[in-house]
Amino acid sequence: MTVGAGSPTVGVVGGGQLGRMLGEAAAPLGIELVVADPTPACPAAPVAREQLVGGFEDAATIRSLAERVDYLTYEIELVDPDALAAAGEATGTPVHPAPETLRLTQDKLAEKRRLESAGVPVADFRPVGGADELRRAAADWGFPVMLKARHGGYDGRGNVLVEGPGDVEPALETVAGPALVERFVEFDCECSVIGVRGEDEVATYPAGENVHAEEILRETVAPARVPAAVRERAQAVASDVLALLSGRGTIGVELFAVGGDVLVNEVAPRPHNSGHFTIEGAHASQFENHLRAVAGLPLGSTGLRGPTAMANVLGDVEAPRPAALDGAGRVLETPGAHLHWYGKREVRPLRKMGHVTVEPTAGEGPDALLDRARDLVDGLTFVHPAEPQTGRPARPDGDLHTEP
Amino acid sequence: MTVGAGSPTVGVVGGGQLGRMLGEAAAPLGIELVVADPTPACPAAPVAREQLVGGFEDAATIRSLAERVDYLTYEIELVDPDALAAAGEATGTPVHPAPETLRLTQDKLAEKRRLESAGVPVADFRPVGGADELRRAAADWGFPVMLKARHGGYDGRGNVLVEGPGDVEPALETVAGPALVERFVEFDCECSVIGVRGEDEVATYPAGENVHAEEILRETVAPARVPAAVRERAQAVASDVLALLSGRGTIGVELFAVGGDVLVNEVAPRPHNSGHFTIEGAHASQFENHLRAVAGLPLGSTGLRGPTAMANVLGDVEAPRPAALDGAGRVLETPGAHLHWYGKREVRPLRKMGHVTVEPTAGEGPDALLDRARDLVDGLTFVHPAEPQTGRPARPDGDLHTEP
Repeated sequence: MTVGAGSPTVGVVGGGQLGRMLGEAAAPLGIELVVADPTPACPAAPVAREQLVGGFEDAATIRSLAERVDYLTYEIELVDPDALAAAGEATGTPVHPAPETLRLTQDKLAEKRRLESAGVPVADFRPVGGADELRRAAADWGFPVMLKARHGGYDGRGNVLVEGPGDVEPALETVAGPALVERFVEFDCECSVIGVRGEDEVATYPAGENVHAEEILRETVAPARVPAAVRERAQAVASDVLALLSGRGTIGVELFAVGGDVLVNEVAPRPHNSGHFTIEGAHASQFENHLRAVAGLPLGSTGLRGPTAMANVLGDVEAPRPAALDGAGRVLETPGAHLHWYGKREVRPLRKMGHVTVEPTAGEGPDALLDRARDLVDGLTFVHPAEPQTGRPARPDGDLHTEP
Repeated sequence: MTVGAGSPTVGVVGGGQLGRMLGEAAAPLGIELVVADPTPACPAAPVAREQLVGGFEDAATIRSLAERVDYLTYEIELVDPDALAAAGEATGTPVHPAPETLRLTQDKLAEKRRLESAGVPVADFRPVGGADELRRAAADWGFPVMLKARHGGYDGRGNVLVEGPGDVEPALETVAGPALVERFVEFDCECSVIGVRGEDEVATYPAGENVHAEEILRETVAPARVPAAVRERAQAVASDVLALLSGRGTIGVELFAVGGDVLVNEVAPRPHNSGHFTIEGAHASQFENHLRAVAGLPLGSTGLRGPTAMANVLGDVEAPRPAALDGAGRVLETPGAHLHWYGKREVRPLRKMGHVTVEPTAGEGPDALLDRARDLVDGLTFVHPAEPQTGRPARPDGDLHTEP
């Protein structure tokens, strides 16, 4: 049997890869996790003391989680903020980041308005009630424009690029609900700054540079390869964003670097994919600092240990099937490369299955590290569990697989 | 409920701090742990998928563990090698390191004979059957000599320094069983080399320098502050030692540096306290490499990321009581310092409760890092849970405590 031990205990709504990496960071701090996730044997389960099986919007599960822990947090933005607030109030369990922070970032229009009214630089935006308003924005700013669903978007879901008049009606049909339109930004690069709101301190990591494709993050390299002044501006702007929010925890701030300045794109009140490089790349990772913040402990240093590159391992399949990754042996053999496997049993098209981080072993800079991370991930492929692609036995070759 | 997910699964006999740190290292590799330990809610339990409650010498528990996992290993030398071998044979589960390796290192006389016969440099030693043999050794070598129990010694338990003729009888009474005597070594410093036996490769970490007091490790700093030639010699000798053993896994080799050469003192077929610095200090830690080796995966780089110092947090109490550590906030606030708390519920005199690692944030060298690690640990003290030593509330101050 598994028997729990220790305190404080942090409850996490959501038990995906972010919960798993929180679990990896928790034990050295003497913190134990309990997670709630609708999928039995979720990725975080092996490193959590306990998993409750229940939905992200299920008030009873969240309440039950709050009853078992000293602090309540969440790792997915689909959680119902009202259920979080109610569970916290009923049980006296502090909830971090504050449910109102989650409520704000769940509504992209409200988020943008809040940022703009506080003087945070953002791209031009307007609410969109129908085709006429969308056409008017395009007339004012020129095509293309970006149509975004107000609610429920993440990893680019709910974002539609409107390239010409003929895209207006189909875009509105795709978004199918309350929306906003944003002026298209011809950015120099996409960056993000991971910040942490502590009990009475705020810290930010140096800006990372992000590479997206099909609206999903592929790679991050830190520090971002932009002028130092832009990196500093990004950190300063991210600090301004953090100051507008409430509660404690790690916050991901996505920005566009454009013409020597930055524009804030989106804010996520949780550890962020673009901050995974901090596990090896910073003195204290975004996961460790999230737990420290939530539990009211002092924050750890957000300084870099060195340049670091991270590449996501995405499902390269056309349909869901049991996960079996071929080629991991090369990652494991490469000095300075670190495999992070999320333990998901099923691979799906473009699903985030793991990531690879590369840190320097001989003074390499960001370019070389990014190349190496890309190359390693390019060498990974999901195979049918019954069809090994090599002649060697699966385990000694470094295959990693989870059975259904 | 907690539900397991993923594979391969490694079973670990022993669920203390070494098992806990194995659990922390397992998830990124996609490995899950099941541990067996007699203490319910043992330190490793929160990061293991499951804990079986049973003794280290209990064949039924070890057999039951072997049935549930793909690979079987151990993190404590008190395990019965026959029970390991029988469980492995009955279930077809590979056992690493091999039970005969454990059997050898459990018998200090057999270990020393094996090392000597292979040409590995060791201090002069002889079996001791009684007072006459002990007196003869002292006459030949001069006082002091070191009397050691053949079986069951660790952390200096079972070692007695015999400083003059009057100590002979009391020393034999203390050891109370089969023993060996060793010529006393006036070493320049104590070192250790952590090695890893992989499937068809062997790797060693750079030598660390160890500071003991009351025969318990207090601090390790890496690289060891001895001439580079001595460090290289230590790694080469450790490789020779690893070549004598069988099975896969991390092996700790303790050595004395003396007059430009080294002598092997003891060998431990498991991750070693003096290798904890590798978590932050090396590209792949001794725990990650132990799991890689046991599971037949390629080994990770044993190169250093930079100089690193580690200091143990030992129980500074006179009698057992519930653990409550005061002063951890300062560790958490110090850039480059990393707290590792083992989650033990009870503090006992000199019990290993955690450790602190310090890595450089501004190019500091080994001396500065060791000073800082010592200073941080000197600032920690175990208090009565009911008597907080500060005016601030326990959690925000960084207190870590586990209730009984």
